[in-house]
Order: sequence, then structure tokens, then C-alpha cells
Amino acid sequence: MRPLDLIRKKRDGGEMSSDEISFLVRAYTNDDIPDYQMAAWMMAVLIRGMTGAELNALTGAMLHSGEVLDLSDIPGPKVDKHSTGGVGDKTSLIIAPVVAAGGVTVPMISGRGLGHTGGTLDKLQSIPGFNINLSLSEFRRVLKSCGCGLIGQTAEIAPADKKLYALRDVTATVESPNLICASIMSKKLAEGIDGLVLDVKTGSGAFMKIEKDSVHLAELMVETGERMGKKMVALITDMDQPLGLKVGNSLEVEECIEVMNGGGPADLREVSVELSAWMFYLAGRSPDVDSGRELADKLIRDRSALKKFREIVVNQGGDPKSIDDPKLLPQAQHRVNEVSTASGFVDSIQCEQVGIASLVLGGGREKKEDVIDPAVGLILHKKVGDPVKAGEALCTILYNSDARLSTAQDLLQRAYRIAERPPAVKRPLIHRVISGKGAQA
Amino acid sequence: MRPLDLIRKKRDGGEMSSDEISFLVRAYTNDDIPDYQMAAWMMAVLIRGMTGAELNALTGAMLHSGEVLDLSDIPGPKVDKHSTGGVGDKTSLIIAPVVAAGGVTVPMISGRGLGHTGGTLDKLQSIPGFNINLSLSEFRRVLKSCGCGLIGQTAEIAPADKKLYALRDVTATVESPNLICASIMSKKLAEGIDGLVLDVKTGSGAFMKIEKDSVHLAELMVETGERMGKKMVALITDMDQPLGLKVGNSLEVEECIEVMNGGGPADLREVSVELSAWMFYLAGRSPDVDSGRELADKLIRDRSALKKFREIVVNQGGDPKSIDDPKLLPQAQHRVNEVSTASGFVDSIQCEQVGIASLVLGGGREKKEDVIDPAVGLILHKKVGDPVKAGEALCTILYNSDARLSTAQDLLQRAYRIAERPPAVKRPLIHRVISGKGAQA
Repeated sequence: MRPLDLIRKKRDGGEMSSDEISFLVRAYTNDDIPDYQMAAWMMAVLIRGMTGAELNALTGAMLHSGEVLDLSDIPGPKVDKHSTGGVGDKTSLIIAPVVAAGGVTVPMISGRGLGHTGGTLDKLQSIPGFNINLSLSEFRRVLKSCGCGLIGQTAEIAPADKKLYALRDVTATVESPNLICASIMSKKLAEGIDGLVLDVKTGSGAFMKIEKDSVHLAELMVETGERMGKKMVALITDMDQPLGLKVGNSLEVEECIEVMNGGGPADLREVSVELSAWMFYLAGRSPDVDSGRELADKLIRDRSALKKFREIVVNQGGDPKSIDDPKLLPQAQHRVNEVSTASGFVDSIQCEQVGIASLVLGGGREKKEDVIDPAVGLILHKKVGDPVKAGEALCTILYNSDARLSTAQDLLQRAYRIAERPPAVKRPLIHRVISGKGAQA
Repeated sequence: MRPLDLIRKKRDGGEMSSDEISFLVRAYTNDDIPDYQMAAWMMAVLIRGMTGAELNALTGAMLHSGEVLDLSDIPGPKVDKHSTGGVGDKTSLIIAPVVAAGGVTVPMISGRGLGHTGGTLDKLQSIPGFNINLSLSEFRRVLKSCGCGLIGQTAEIAPADKKLYALRDVTATVESPNLICASIMSKKLAEGIDGLVLDVKTGSGAFMKIEKDSVHLAELMVETGERMGKKMVALITDMDQPLGLKVGNSLEVEECIEVMNGGGPADLREVSVELSAWMFYLAGRSPDVDSGRELADKLIRDRSALKKFREIVVNQGGDPKSIDDPKLLPQAQHRVNEVSTASGFVDSIQCEQVGIASLVLGGGREKKEDVIDPAVGLILHKKVGDPVKAGEALCTILYNSDARLSTAQDLLQRAYRIAERPPAVKRPLIHRVISGKGAQA
């Protein structure tokens, strides 16, 4: 097979065979095909699209470029959740302990913050001592001992994805739904799971701003997972404003602890419970989603989830005192309120701008090499539909560097839109459920 | 400007500004943009296409990446001809002396053989001593002294094209009509010409096998040249079988000398005269194409063109004795006939296969580094429509290496298709003329 012939085939809209796709992925991973050829091919994929069979082959080739965990020696079903990313999207830190507390193993391999969105790994690392760099054998050990582990992508998992992702990032091919699907699914399927709940975000703070695009990606992922024999469901959830009230790494850990203590904001609690309920259902732990919801509620109410979270932290080297007393998490030195210049109601919040504000404060990375400041971030006092008076605080900025403050203030001032009347339509938290054949509720 | 935003714009089918295209070409030429980004952009250009304004900007940016000759100190008009390449396509060696003998300056910067097609430079180099590597100041000197020079692309001419061409070759983006047009026109416009006659080939031996594609490319080039203020015309000429009877480097020089001696094959003579006639017309040397044709005929008949060719050879360091006696050109050691296995008529000749046969004998390059054998090639005895008896020679193979012979024989055997009756339709030599507004006949 010659790479040029394969590029030409996709360029002209042809369908590639499974062998051809495997050859391309393997050769690129082995450095036998240069970046510029793969870049040309990925641009052709982005524009021409892929058939289901092609996407399947691509996902399979990327999955099998590395190790695939075999967790069959751990009894019971294993399920995971994956979110496409958002602002204040911290549900993993609640869901993983809830579901593990319910007796289902959750082998969660997570990512870093990407662009304006936060990352589970960055949040976890604000807990002093928490080690996300477990080897696969250590990961297996914590899964056996407490039913849940939260780690980063190791070198053994889908190395093809690592290389392809870096190239997509610099060739304007990140946005291809097929390439996004193959990237996510190859990593998730390497976890050795039986089922996967996808949280596909939609709205101004999501990568897919339009519901139709979110639904398309969700369908691709559900179909791909099903073809690989997994139980699949995707929830299209709202990301038109931040989830919960806190944005920033240690702030988000704190808010998750609030929820697991029976409090916290209602939207964060609801999305977390809903996703947990589907995980229980896919795992066969609950006969239906309703009873999965009741189970998740109960495990939060009776503090089982919080206890499980503490256990996970201890298992991965973290300091449990910061869970018992979140004031021990990194705290920013300064705080200032961002106030409204008008009276009325919050009509909308440009959610991506809020994410970027947190990023520029130091909560995210502008360049790969940037070091995250776990303490900085935002606390929202007003969300969409809330009444507000001129001079009243919309949010509080927690910061450590004066130099970064003014950019964040600008972004936040422009992010809030105040109107005379509350918005006519309230966006739902859960827009839609797309379930695979193996997961009909 | 950020390269990623520009790639994204073309990817999504947007129209780029002239500044954006200039930035991209300049940055790539200066090694400020990596190959993989340019590869992604070129694939997007191939699939999404370009507007006329974009193509103009691209051609201009590539043209101005290097030196543009100013020949205003040489009196009279300057015109050139460019062919998109074919098999046995040797007209440059006749046209340049004919037109220069007619008093029009021809500053011809030519190319090497590409794939199955021959190259003017390779043919000229079969003349002992002929130097195609003149500096631009030497080029200017020969243009002044004899009205014609034939050289290769220097480092000063369109360096952006050199770099982009090499990348297109390895990313399956060679076939984009816009990129082909910009590549050809940026080099030709650097010659400081007033008019350009394009010979766009069509048929089984051309890069564009289908007439519609040839016409599309011709239109793009004519429009681009006109926008740059040049007189433009494109002739769509036949390349469904080799032009003339000889294929190979010194063989083709020999055949051109036959034509300039008043003999040679009719098809070669006709296409050469037609292209020369248009050059005379664009240069204002003839009031119309008909009288241009008469002038070209006369200059061949009275041996003025041959005398001019001898003068060009001397001016560029070549041995004129090989022009007076073509047997002094490099000769192959062996020859063998390829005979027909059937009786009937030649129905078609797979022209690209004939070109590849000459290439594998050593007449072309399989890899960039290959050294050309000027002596080898083919002499056709039968062309489309000719009657043939089983056992009669279709062509003679001239070769120096037994190892390469059998591959060439296989290719030639399969290239000829013999039928019981002559083909019903005879393809014209000149399919169509596409003239710019400044060149209406």
C-alpha cells in the first residue's frame, strides 16, 4: 500500500478499507509516514467525512495501537462516563464515587483542560498529593481495592491518538466529528469497560455550540461503541452557561464536596445524578433509569459517595484532610467582585468567555507548557434568569496576579447580558438522550 | 494573521483575502510555516477550490517570491509557449527557433520530464555541451544576441513554487487545477513576457485525460494571465497518442531537426506551426493567425528556423555538428522491433504506457536522483488508424540495458490495441482554442 494512493482515495471521496486505514494509522504511529501526509489525509477526512465502517476501522486501529485493559479478573460490570468538556463541568468527581459506592467498577482515564474547558486531571491535582500518574498495574490495584480509579492517559493507551491529536491541533482538523469520535472512543474502549455513558455538551461553552452538531457526534460515538460490543448511551446536556457556581480547579473540587455533603447547586446535582443513573442502568445495577436515579440520590444523601471519594483520594496518595475541610485546598490570595452595570435579569452568559476568563487567571493553559494555578477561578452569584440590580455582584474573581485580573474582568463584563425581562424560554439541563440498542431505557 | 485561522477559512469554503494568501506563501517560503500546515491548506484548496481573485493572489504571491525578469531593454515583444506535457511532445525545440527567426524574442524557461512525460531540458541536454544552467544575466545576453534562450528554472525564479511543488508531489495535491495554474503561471510570468501561448494536452498521454478538465485548466490559466495584463491563448491539443514518431531524448532532437529540414511527421509539424502562428499573432508580428501560419511555414521551408536553432545551440555551448549530422547525438547500442500479434488496424495507443516504456528504458526518471540515458527510446512505425499485419513491427525499441527491455516490451505490447476496422472517429490534432479578450483571432 502506498500512502499517496490512500490520501488520493479519501481526497476523491472514496471509501477506504479497514486494512488501508489500519496501515495508515500503524505507519504513522511508527513514524513511517510524515506529518504532512497525515495532515493532508486528515483534512480530506474532515471535508469528505467517513462511512460507519471507516470510522469503526479508524477507532479500532487507534485503540489497538496500544494496550487494551482486560479487567475480567475484577468481578462485576465496569462502566465509565465521558464528557466532551465544558465550563464548570466537574461531574466526574461526583459520579465516579457515586457509582463506585453503588458497587460498579469505574475505571476512569481522564484528560487535561483543553482550550476554554477544564480538565478532570487538573482539578484532581489541586488535592495535595493526589497522584494521577499511576501505572496500569497500580491502576488495576486501586480498581480492585476501592472500585474506582482516576488517572491520566498513560503512554501504553492509544499512542496513535496521542500523535494524531497533536497533529490535528496544529492543522485545523480538530473539529472533524469522525476524528473526535475515534479519538475519544479509542481511549475509552482501552479501559476494558462494558458500558459507557457519554455527556455530550451543547451551547456557548461547549465545543459543539449547536445541538444538531452535538447530536451528530453523540450518534457517531454511540454507534461506534455499539459496534465494538459496548452498552452505550449519550446525554446531550446544556453548556450554555457554566455548570454549578464555581469555575477553577480547587473551587470545583470544593463544590463537588458540597454536593456530596447533600448541598451544592441544583443543576450540578441533577446532571451528576442523571449520568450516574444511566451508569447504574447500563451496568445492570438498576432495572431502569428511575431506580438508578433513586440509588444515586440515596448514595449522596447517606454520605456513601463522599466516603468513597475520600477512599479514592487516599488510595491515590492524596491528603484526605482537604476533603474533610476544603479550606485546606489551595486558596487564592485576592478576591474582587465583578458587578452589574445594569438592573434587570441575566439574559445569557457567554459561557466560553467565562472559561477563558478562568484560563487567563491561571486556571487553564494557553500553551502546553503552562503551569496551572489550582487556587484561582470564579464564583458565580448570578445565573441565567436571575434578577440583578446595578452595582450588585455578578460573580467574584479569585486571583493571584494583578496582571491577569483586568483581562478576566473585561471578558466577564462582556460575558453577562442583562435584559429587562427574564428570558422567555428556559433551556433544559438534559436536552436529549440518545441510547444504543443495548441500552434502551 | 495565524496560519490555523487561514487553514480553517479555506477548509470551510471561505474566500481568502489577497493579504492572507500572500502571508501564507511568504511564511511557507521562509520556513515559518511547517509542511504539515501547508499540506492541510493545499488539500483544502484542492477540495474546496478557489475563486478567481484567490487564484490571482496565489499566482502573484508565488511569482513575487522571486525575481521577475525585466526585458524592457530588449526591443520588440516577448512571447513564450508552455505545454502541460505529453509523450513525444517536442514542439518547443521547433517553435522557439521558428518564432525567434521571425523576429520575436522567446525567453523560454522550461522543465524536466515529469512522470511519464518528457522534458525540454532533458532533450536539450542530449546535445553535447548544451548548457541549460545559465544565470539570469547570461540568459539576458543570449536573448539579446539571438532572440531566444532555453534554460531551466533558476533559484531566483519563483522559489515558492519550488517548495510548494515538492510538497504537492508527496501529499496527493498535484491534481488541483488551481495549484497547477498558479505553479505554471508564476514561473512563466517571471520571464518578463508580453504574451503566452498555452498548449494544454488532452487524452491518454496527458495529465488531464478528459477534455473537460483540460479546458477548465486552460480557462484558469488564460484568465489568470489576462488579469496580470498578458496576451493569452490556450490550444487544447491531442495527446491520445505520442506526437510524432520518436520518443526519447536524442531521438526527439533528431525528429525536430527533420521537421526543420522540411520533413518529419505531419502531426508534429502541424502542432508546431499552429502554436508558432499564435505566438506571432500575440506578438503582433502577424495581423492574424493565418498569416502567422504562413510565416512559420516559410521560416521552416527556407531553413531560417534550422539556422536559428544552430545559433541557439552555439550560444548555449552546444556542439553544432550534432545539428548538422544528428547521427552524432547519443545513439543506443541495441534495437529490437516490437511486432503486432494480430492483423487489422491500430485502434488506439495507450499513450501514458508508451511514455512509461521510454522512462523505464532510461529516458526518464523514476526517482529524482536518476540519471537520464539520452540515447534510449522508441520509434513508432504505426499510429492510430494505420493498417498492420501480424508479425509486422509496431515500433522499434532503442535500448542500452537488457534488464530494462522486457518491462518496456510488456508495456508496449499492451499499449497497442488492434481492431478489425479502423477507428470510426478520427480525433482532431487541435481540439479547441481558448483565447483571452486580448487575443481574439
